[in-house]
Amino acid sequence: MFKNPTLVLNEQKCRNNIELMLNKSKKLGVELRPHFKTHQSIIVGRWFKELGIKKIAVSSVPMAKYFASDGWNDISVAFPFVSQQADEINALAKTINLQILTSSAGNATLLKQKITMRVGVFVEIDTGQNRSGVSIDDYESIDQMIDIIQSNPNARFDGFLSHAGHSYSKTPEKVEAINIAATKKLAELKIKYKSQFPNIVISYGDTPTSSICEKFEGVDELRPGNFAFYDMQQFSFGVCSTSNIAIALVCPVVAVYPNRSRAIIWGGAVHLSKDYYFDNEGNKSFGAVCKLNPDNTWGNPIDGLYLESISQEHGVVKAKNCEVINELKEGDLVAILPAHSCLTADKMGEYWVKGFGTITMMGNS
Amino acid sequence: MFKNPTLVLNEQKCRNNIELMLNKSKKLGVELRPHFKTHQSIIVGRWFKELGIKKIAVSSVPMAKYFASDGWNDISVAFPFVSQQADEINALAKTINLQILTSSAGNATLLKQKITMRVGVFVEIDTGQNRSGVSIDDYESIDQMIDIIQSNPNARFDGFLSHAGHSYSKTPEKVEAINIAATKKLAELKIKYKSQFPNIVISYGDTPTSSICEKFEGVDELRPGNFAFYDMQQFSFGVCSTSNIAIALVCPVVAVYPNRSRAIIWGGAVHLSKDYYFDNEGNKSFGAVCKLNPDNTWGNPIDGLYLESISQEHGVVKAKNCEVINELKEGDLVAILPAHSCLTADKMGEYWVKGFGTITMMGNS
Repeated sequence: MFKNPTLVLNEQKCRNNIELMLNKSKKLGVELRPHFKTHQSIIVGRWFKELGIKKIAVSSVPMAKYFASDGWNDISVAFPFVSQQADEINALAKTINLQILTSSAGNATLLKQKITMRVGVFVEIDTGQNRSGVSIDDYESIDQMIDIIQSNPNARFDGFLSHAGHSYSKTPEKVEAINIAATKKLAELKIKYKSQFPNIVISYGDTPTSSICEKFEGVDELRPGNFAFYDMQQFSFGVCSTSNIAIALVCPVVAVYPNRSRAIIWGGAVHLSKDYYFDNEGNKSFGAVCKLNPDNTWGNPIDGLYLESISQEHGVVKAKNCEVINELKEGDLVAILPAHSCLTADKMGEYWVKGFGTITMMGNS
Repeated sequence: MFKNPTLVLNEQKCRNNIELMLNKSKKLGVELRPHFKTHQSIIVGRWFKELGIKKIAVSSVPMAKYFASDGWNDISVAFPFVSQQADEINALAKTINLQILTSSAGNATLLKQKITMRVGVFVEIDTGQNRSGVSIDDYESIDQMIDIIQSNPNARFDGFLSHAGHSYSKTPEKVEAINIAATKKLAELKIKYKSQFPNIVISYGDTPTSSICEKFEGVDELRPGNFAFYDMQQFSFGVCSTSNIAIALVCPVVAVYPNRSRAIIWGGAVHLSKDYYFDNEGNKSFGAVCKLNPDNTWGNPIDGLYLESISQEHGVVKAKNCEVINELKEGDLVAILPAHSCLTADKMGEYWVKGFGTITMMGNS
């Protein structure tokens, strides 16, 4: 049935992942504002909406426009303000409750100059990832940026947003420690500004912390995205089990070399992207290899096989020994659990879903 | 003018790269059969056609169909036969001279069973990359595969195809050594089969060998692809100069942090892909940073800046010191020379070309 590398989305696994995270956030008393950059699909978005979720995060203004077109009206763009997108932001802010992010004083100055419609503005705080945002203890810059925002009467200072991206690639114990340190500082920041801004919001949380941790001091909303699908990186960090992973790339097996303990599949960097993880034996792997069932679900990863390397269209499956490689034969279809589901989904641009057929994602911005 | 990360293609640089490679192949007396997987564009394909090129290679059957739709009628699919694509192959073989590839005895058996129209078939030979193809000294398998091919009266054995992918990531001296070793063995293989198959063709050559080497013993056609654009990986291997690189991703600068010697651009893994190279100081880099000129050409890479890391939409530019980072400011557009142009082009799906505006690529297979 599948003639090309095809990204299959298991609706039940995805809905389960969403429901579990929503239940957890309710139990903890924090709002779940899921990040839609992972799935980028209106159809998948509706699975969240059916559970009562009304607020979302996205990673670009085009993505905000895409989801607004399906009725989402409370959207945070969790990426620094792009001055070239000011016209699009002002247009979108006419119709929905839009929040944008500013990440440096220079960025805030451009925002002040270009925003002409009512928007909420978060100040991005760096809690240790050292990627984007103002250092959490740099009160001088934080105060300066709030002043700049408030000098534009259309810009409403809404609070602080942080992405603890340094919680990736860590053991659950280290994720816990990073989470405690980051949320403690964010809680202090909130207390400091609360009297001046009583409605201040702390927006925080990624898939590792939101999946593993049970305490989010001072945090008002969690913003994970990857958890809807999970992937082999998250599995390798101890964040999910392989049975939670909701997408798999179905690939034709095109050549088997028992004497090299290797097989070639049609499935490469143009399908999976080039992210990788390390399996439990320390092998660098671009994906786990599963049998595809007749009903287009998939089994557990086949023990002893991993995706050793990928080039543009080729994937090379390596086996521990020549017996295991004989699990594969030319003409088969196999299901590859991706290393990084966000990038694989973005790369493929569409899903095959049982009962729906092919569903598309937004065009890439 | 550019509001989003935009892939700009410099037509003149690209045409120069094509012309240089064509002149070299003529001088060496080998046919140039360029691989179109890098650009995947009918418009760019016409720049090759204008120079008299009539034969091309592609990496999938959908890509063969795409270029056949623009009049290309001599196409080699340089990827192992995919049995799920047999109907498409048989349909295409009715209208053009199509060559396909077989890479194992099991693969050849499927090909024998499913091919019903006249196609040429290459046997894929592994000259040391250890990815795909039969080992060059495994005459038993080679003979067996030729027998299987010939047992289908529609399948015509055309010769041997090899991709010396192990010539990547090497110094020019090592590329020379790999090339001499690989072509010597291919020449011996040709001699061995020439009496039985007088029209046998040896198809070989990638961008490193085709750009650097001057001797291709026994080789009938060269099949490089990346050379049309080149990229920072090829530059880092000593294969091209940065002035040969024909594409750049134009990205907005969104935040500058002089105290961290870093800046954030809108340009990440969903635009560039996640390939990287090592710069001349040993830094792992995802791209080189250049000034964008008012006419949308770009300058040389800015000394002391490199793209240190990328996540989904973010790129982090690192500077040697805080003076160099002040070359960038919020609101600027910069041009990033990609680490791997094939994957960046595939990811972006379209080019902006002066005089053309936006030109699209084939949909991803």
